[in-house]
Amino acid sequence: MRESCGLFGIFSPKPDLNIARTVYYGLIALQHRGQESAGIAVTDGEKIKYHKGLGLVNDVFDEEVLGELSGRAAIGHVRYSTTGSNVFENAQPIVVACQRGTLAVAHNGNIINTCELRKQLESKGSSFRSTTDSEIVALLLIERGPDVLHACLDAMHSLQGAYCLLVMDQQRLIAIRDPLGFRPLCMGRLDDCVVFASETVALDAVGAEFVRNIEPGEIVMVSGSGVESYRVSSSKNAFCVFEFVYFARPDSVLENVSVYSARERAGRLLALEQPADADLVVGVPDSGTVAAIGYSNQSGIPYGMGLIKNKYIGRTFIQPSQKLRNLGVRLKLNALGELVKGKSIVLVDDSIVRGTTMGQIVKMLRSAGARSIHVRIASPPIRYGCYFGVDTSDRRELIAAILEEKKIEQLIGADSLGYLSLEGLVNAVGLPSDRLCLACFNGAYPLEVPSICTKYLFEKE
Amino acid sequence: MRESCGLFGIFSPKPDLNIARTVYYGLIALQHRGQESAGIAVTDGEKIKYHKGLGLVNDVFDEEVLGELSGRAAIGHVRYSTTGSNVFENAQPIVVACQRGTLAVAHNGNIINTCELRKQLESKGSSFRSTTDSEIVALLLIERGPDVLHACLDAMHSLQGAYCLLVMDQQRLIAIRDPLGFRPLCMGRLDDCVVFASETVALDAVGAEFVRNIEPGEIVMVSGSGVESYRVSSSKNAFCVFEFVYFARPDSVLENVSVYSARERAGRLLALEQPADADLVVGVPDSGTVAAIGYSNQSGIPYGMGLIKNKYIGRTFIQPSQKLRNLGVRLKLNALGELVKGKSIVLVDDSIVRGTTMGQIVKMLRSAGARSIHVRIASPPIRYGCYFGVDTSDRRELIAAILEEKKIEQLIGADSLGYLSLEGLVNAVGLPSDRLCLACFNGAYPLEVPSICTKYLFEKE
Amino acid sequence: MRESCGLFGIFSPKPDLNIARTVYYGLIALQHRGQESAGIAVTDGEKIKYHKGLGLVNDVFDEEVLGELSGRAAIGHVRYSTTGSNVFENAQPIVVACQRGTLAVAHNGNIINTCELRKQLESKGSSFRSTTDSEIVALLLIERGPDVLHACLDAMHSLQGAYCLLVMDQQRLIAIRDPLGFRPLCMGRLDDCVVFASETVALDAVGAEFVRNIEPGEIVMVSGSGVESYRVSSSKNAFCVFEFVYFARPDSVLENVSVYSARERAGRLLALEQPADADLVVGVPDSGTVAAIGYSNQSGIPYGMGLIKNKYIGRTFIQPSQKLRNLGVRLKLNALGELVKGKSIVLVDDSIVRGTTMGQIVKMLRSAGARSIHVRIASPPIRYGCYFGVDTSDRRELIAAILEEKKIEQLIGADSLGYLSLEGLVNAVGLPSDRLCLACFNGAYPLEVPSICTKYLFEKE
Amino acid sequence: MRESCGLFGIFSPKPDLNIARTVYYGLIALQHRGQESAGIAVTDGEKIKYHKGLGLVNDVFDEEVLGELSGRAAIGHVRYSTTGSNVFENAQPIVVACQRGTLAVAHNGNIINTCELRKQLESKGSSFRSTTDSEIVALLLIERGPDVLHACLDAMHSLQGAYCLLVMDQQRLIAIRDPLGFRPLCMGRLDDCVVFASETVALDAVGAEFVRNIEPGEIVMVSGSGVESYRVSSSKNAFCVFEFVYFARPDSVLENVSVYSARERAGRLLALEQPADADLVVGVPDSGTVAAIGYSNQSGIPYGMGLIKNKYIGRTFIQPSQKLRNLGVRLKLNALGELVKGKSIVLVDDSIVRGTTMGQIVKMLRSAGARSIHVRIASPPIRYGCYFGVDTSDRRELIAAILEEKKIEQLIGADSLGYLSLEGLVNAVGLPSDRLCLACFNGAYPLEVPSICTKYLFEKE
Repeated sequence: MRESCGLFGIFSPKPDLNIARTVYYGLIALQHRGQESAGIAVTDGEKIKYHKGLGLVNDVFDEEVLGELSGRAAIGHVRYSTTGSNVFENAQPIVVACQRGTLAVAHNGNIINTCELRKQLESKGSSFRSTTDSEIVALLLIERGPDVLHACLDAMHSLQGAYCLLVMDQQRLIAIRDPLGFRPLCMGRLDDCVVFASETVALDAVGAEFVRNIEPGEIVMVSGSGVESYRVSSSKNAFCVFEFVYFARPDSVLENVSVYSARERAGRLLALEQPADADLVVGVPDSGTVAAIGYSNQSGIPYGMGLIKNKYIGRTFIQPSQKLRNLGVRLKLNALGELVKGKSIVLVDDSIVRGTTMGQIVKMLRSAGARSIHVRIASPPIRYGCYFGVDTSDRRELIAAILEEKKIEQLIGADSLGYLSLEGLVNAVGLPSDRLCLACFNGAYPLEVPSICTKYLFEKE
Repeated sequence: MRESCGLFGIFSPKPDLNIARTVYYGLIALQHRGQESAGIAVTDGEKIKYHKGLGLVNDVFDEEVLGELSGRAAIGHVRYSTTGSNVFENAQPIVVACQRGTLAVAHNGNIINTCELRKQLESKGSSFRSTTDSEIVALLLIERGPDVLHACLDAMHSLQGAYCLLVMDQQRLIAIRDPLGFRPLCMGRLDDCVVFASETVALDAVGAEFVRNIEPGEIVMVSGSGVESYRVSSSKNAFCVFEFVYFARPDSVLENVSVYSARERAGRLLALEQPADADLVVGVPDSGTVAAIGYSNQSGIPYGMGLIKNKYIGRTFIQPSQKLRNLGVRLKLNALGELVKGKSIVLVDDSIVRGTTMGQIVKMLRSAGARSIHVRIASPPIRYGCYFGVDTSDRRELIAAILEEKKIEQLIGADSLGYLSLEGLVNAVGLPSDRLCLACFNGAYPLEVPSICTKYLFEKE
Repeated sequence: MRESCGLFGIFSPKPDLNIARTVYYGLIALQHRGQESAGIAVTDGEKIKYHKGLGLVNDVFDEEVLGELSGRAAIGHVRYSTTGSNVFENAQPIVVACQRGTLAVAHNGNIINTCELRKQLESKGSSFRSTTDSEIVALLLIERGPDVLHACLDAMHSLQGAYCLLVMDQQRLIAIRDPLGFRPLCMGRLDDCVVFASETVALDAVGAEFVRNIEPGEIVMVSGSGVESYRVSSSKNAFCVFEFVYFARPDSVLENVSVYSARERAGRLLALEQPADADLVVGVPDSGTVAAIGYSNQSGIPYGMGLIKNKYIGRTFIQPSQKLRNLGVRLKLNALGELVKGKSIVLVDDSIVRGTTMGQIVKMLRSAGARSIHVRIASPPIRYGCYFGVDTSDRRELIAAILEEKKIEQLIGADSLGYLSLEGLVNAVGLPSDRLCLACFNGAYPLEVPSICTKYLFEKE
Repeated sequence: MRESCGLFGIFSPKPDLNIARTVYYGLIALQHRGQESAGIAVTDGEKIKYHKGLGLVNDVFDEEVLGELSGRAAIGHVRYSTTGSNVFENAQPIVVACQRGTLAVAHNGNIINTCELRKQLESKGSSFRSTTDSEIVALLLIERGPDVLHACLDAMHSLQGAYCLLVMDQQRLIAIRDPLGFRPLCMGRLDDCVVFASETVALDAVGAEFVRNIEPGEIVMVSGSGVESYRVSSSKNAFCVFEFVYFARPDSVLENVSVYSARERAGRLLALEQPADADLVVGVPDSGTVAAIGYSNQSGIPYGMGLIKNKYIGRTFIQPSQKLRNLGVRLKLNALGELVKGKSIVLVDDSIVRGTTMGQIVKMLRSAGARSIHVRIASPPIRYGCYFGVDTSDRRELIAAILEEKKIEQLIGADSLGYLSLEGLVNAVGLPSDRLCLACFNGAYPLEVPSICTKYLFEKE
């Protein structure tokens, strides 16, 4: 399961030699939101320069490149990883110039009316270099120009779906969050600079102070004249609950709720809803660790690190083949035999998508001597695909969309399987359920989901 | 002095697994026309895929990438080298999609009415991702769509300057040469495939047979229905004489004239026009070698390799600094003392641009014992900048635009200096002078040269 | 603080195409023991081939290289990382050939009588290509040949210090552990193959079964004739307690003691010895996590992940400079404000070396709102340098060797500071104290420590 | 056909920050003698540092590395290229330390009594890390120490074969040439520094003045006390004639004979010995170019560049496969149709080894329209393998060792084939035949050739 992207932007009232470096550190703090590509665009008030590339932030930028990117405002972007892809064109920020001006755009989310928008833009003469929705957003904005602010306000009436945007022209930095507020975006202050970031951890990383979240439907524009805010009407909210369940770093605060606390509470409620007669609580690292701590805290069953992760398994790892294939997940995770031997274990994870990894982990714990294994999931079964930025749109890959819980329990080989209820998850997060998007669990999409636009005009290497 | 680009295209009547590989070999044969970036786009009849990157053809492509680019038609491009630049966006082919379809475009030349065209395109809603004229051409074509052929015909009335183009949509491959025919473009046949290339050497490299040159103002379209040709009116021609003087590989045939023969004749005529009382004819490798052979053949003065080039001096070569700076050109060229000692030498090169290298060579030959050095140049003094694809647009760098011949002779330290006359050069080439662009020598630009468009909207790293 | 190395070896009764691949996976499981270089040597019964390189196991090996290394026995090695070094010669295994045969040697540990041995070897005609003690070991073994077994037995009387060795000739694989048994080495079985590894996690990773530890002073030789064991007299043992404190992976079992359990018990005993009036137990990730869990389990004070580590901070990370330097440790660790705010915290780590990082962490937690911070260290103060494989030989860098505890408390800014007693640590490990090396804590070196051999004959890049 | 190596050394009376940089430029000038690996060792009077790596000089060294290698004396080495090999251990200089001191050794040539020497060294306790003869030389020297000069003198009585050596300890730089003087080695002066190089072109490149050749059997030692020379008895000489035929750069002067002149004279004599009724003389670039010029000068038949080489064909070039294999040599060489069409051609090359390439070239010229092709080779048929540094030791690959001239003529498809006589070649070089090694032509090996030592103790990747 993968998130779309991470955003970081900064506006300085005066020229700043280190502006790209600050974005660099912000992006490193957001690296968990995307490892495919990274990019930074900078304006010095007259020209927009940028650098982007495939790989981790560390790989794309070096001292020399950062040194050339001084200016007064900057936006940065990290994009999620697709195995084997090598698609330079998809890297962001997208920088586009036309009669109405020049814009750099960074986008996190997923637009669902891309077919329609692309047709409209094409009918007005726009041409495309990629198949990304982010390019559509950039062209929509530039097409509505030259007044960037009005273009943004206008675009918000056309765009449907999930979008947090950082938009920069030569003089202005604009942060936008869609009316339903699917994805997080917050504002901070670093000395006399205004900072925007997808998660508060990026503010912490650069030493910025949290000011507030960008509101759903809000446009915040920073320029030499200061900070201005605009709103489009936004009747309901739909913050992606999966940000709490999995995506965000535990030390982030989203919608004023600590992600760590939400996960810990989810673990506690899971213990109440799905108790188990066990000797030890084990979390699947790193996704299930916090909920496992919560489960232990609530149930009084001791918490132990029964599974250890090998942190050196990188992306170029050579897969085991033939005779060695039975090594499976064992290279990435190892069971701590001494701890689990003879024990009845509560095995906690944040969610189950396809179920294959969980099956291997259960098997590994049994080989290590666990007496019984009670799998507890700190969120409800995922039964519906996501159209708003999570890469689970094909329901056929979701085990809970196909099988009943009892069958899943058998498939993964657990002695028992228990999910947190949707009510429990909402309570754990602590936000009203009408402010959350829970569609992957209950199918209640906050926006009508159109048939997907599959007519790709060209494909890239 | 640097040329713009090299083009190679192929259309196969049936799917061909090796189509990108053929383009790869074609581009390697054209590598002398550009070393900055390389790219290949392929269509399988439905989708256009591409791969491009910075560096030599060998560096950009490997077996794996070529293996993924099978199809029925393909175009490839090599671009000239700029020290230290790293501009992925400028790599070609440019692939662009809009309402009217999808196009891949590869361009060799230089458009001079870019300001005007860009304004027009912007006023109709086009947006840009780079500052290259090639992107303008691509957008112009796609904007005039969806009938690619008519778009091409139409675009030829708007485009001013030098352009050879290979244009490919999902089903068609189109070769275009501007009405003045500045740059070369030829057609060949390889089994049942139609092939296009900037120079005939690329046909030779892939084993294709030369069919004919694309005519100035001609559009050749290859599709499943065969080969069709269209012409726009073209009152005069202006084939760049510098292709004969320097750019093209000597084994190419341009406008049905062998480059080698033209250079050899230039050397012969130079010997007649600018005789010298000497013992040995030496060419500056590799640019002056052929003309030196011609000079020797005509004059009867023996030809000798008095200068040897180190072929291992690459682009990452560490420049001599401080104390060692006096090594200068010596690392790249070495004088053959045994041969030149005590001799009166005719030193032949194709042209003089700034004069610094020639000065160092003369000095080196003198240190090696040459008694006297008579510099002979197989083309006239370059007095005017080029706006049609040669990187000499700043007249202030052209020594012959600033100094008289006698002064240049002193500056480079030669015992005598003689240029081939313009008439001589034209005779050597053997084409009527009204079919050639001789502007860099006589300032007679075949098109009115506008003030250059310097308003760059954004700059890239 | 850094360990020396990790070892992995395998002997198969029949030719095995995948033998290097198995070593590869074993080394990845041992990667935490060394990230500077990696190497694998393989014998097919007649020739010894090898491949080694700088970097992580993943970077050094690819499918092609592994494919060429088939055979019947293989040994592999990972070496610790030194910033900026690029010393290919230090990579292991070292392969050396002489009259008496050919040997591949991989070494973990540190020899202390290198000066003397080198002089002896030199006096007998040996020559060196590096300054490593591992080369000395290899030469000592080959010099005592040609009977490898006797050479090994003999060498054990000469070698002083810590050494686990894997030695391989064309037909035999030999595992050696020094008489004091400083470093771990275990034996396992994978199908009909014999496997050796520095830690049991490597057995787990390749699916091998643990058989037993190699005993201090033991030589285990595997050949076509089976497994033979030999012992030299070994009056006392001195297993490095720091393997339990820090080096080994928590899921390893050393000397039949689970590392995780030892750390958890250390945390429990720390809670008893050094109680604190607090609301929350926080471990410094990853080094203090297990002890923190133990502290929480014993004290009943809830455990929480008050510090989150950024797992994407790699080795090429650009350090903050000038204005941004105050970011300090914040890029690597972040305090979880919501959790720690207003709380009195027990902050647990495994040890304090220089004290600078701990000071920054305390400061960070205070900024995040912690009310009071009680630092608890799950081992005694490190007061003595190590000469047996740990990179802390310069006492001047050890804060506890210079300052009293009260001063350290002030320096790191803690409300209180408490160390586990040596007795407590020994009890936590559960081995008799006379089987452990505790020298870094009590200065009781199990071997007389000679003045270090500093006369480096040559230095390498 | 490949040469072994190139050497460059320098001794400065005072510390020189640029000493490694000078070696770097010297090695670039010698790059044609070896492309597999490069290395430089430097002494500052106390320590010897070095850096070496696989690849071209340009790839192995950068500003940073050169900056760290300052000192008073330095030696450098380039090694020949073997496709696909990756043998770091074979890179030179070899730096070795033992009781008697520390030495850096760089070697060009081939030792033929390696078996015997290795056994002797092994019996005295030496051990090996590679299978190269250069390591044997280094160990032999260090074993005979500690007086380096005497060790060198002594070693010359043991070493049999071809060897030019640069040997450096902390204070001295020694140049050695074997008593038969197979390979070239010269001495120059650069300001107040003494310089040694395999060919004079390297002196030219760094701006040094040629002083004299090192004599066969001579040892030249440079130290703070100045330059000293020693000789061992040397009854006859055997300078490799193939250095003149192929290896050396044409602008080098070997044994006081200009390589260019020797080749040009060989071409002239070839024209006298093997006249042809032809219209054009064409050389195979670059190996046959100079002889072709000589043939033309003598015969009066015009010289023309009938074959053009693609200088961008690098080592990573993707080979044509299946359907495209018939492209063969065409990607590397192209025939100049315009020039050769209808002509009777004299095609000149320096030598024929296996004959396959020559066959393809003849075919290519015929396709390009050549009427008849008379192949002329500027040296005699190669009928015997070389044991002194040229990679042609397997006679079965030498076409002239298997087939008669008439058969070779047929095989390569030439209208006629003519070789220069051995007498002609010796006359062209201009040295007495008893000062040359002509073994590859006449089998008269200057040293008894032992059966080759094939018992490789270990193989490296």
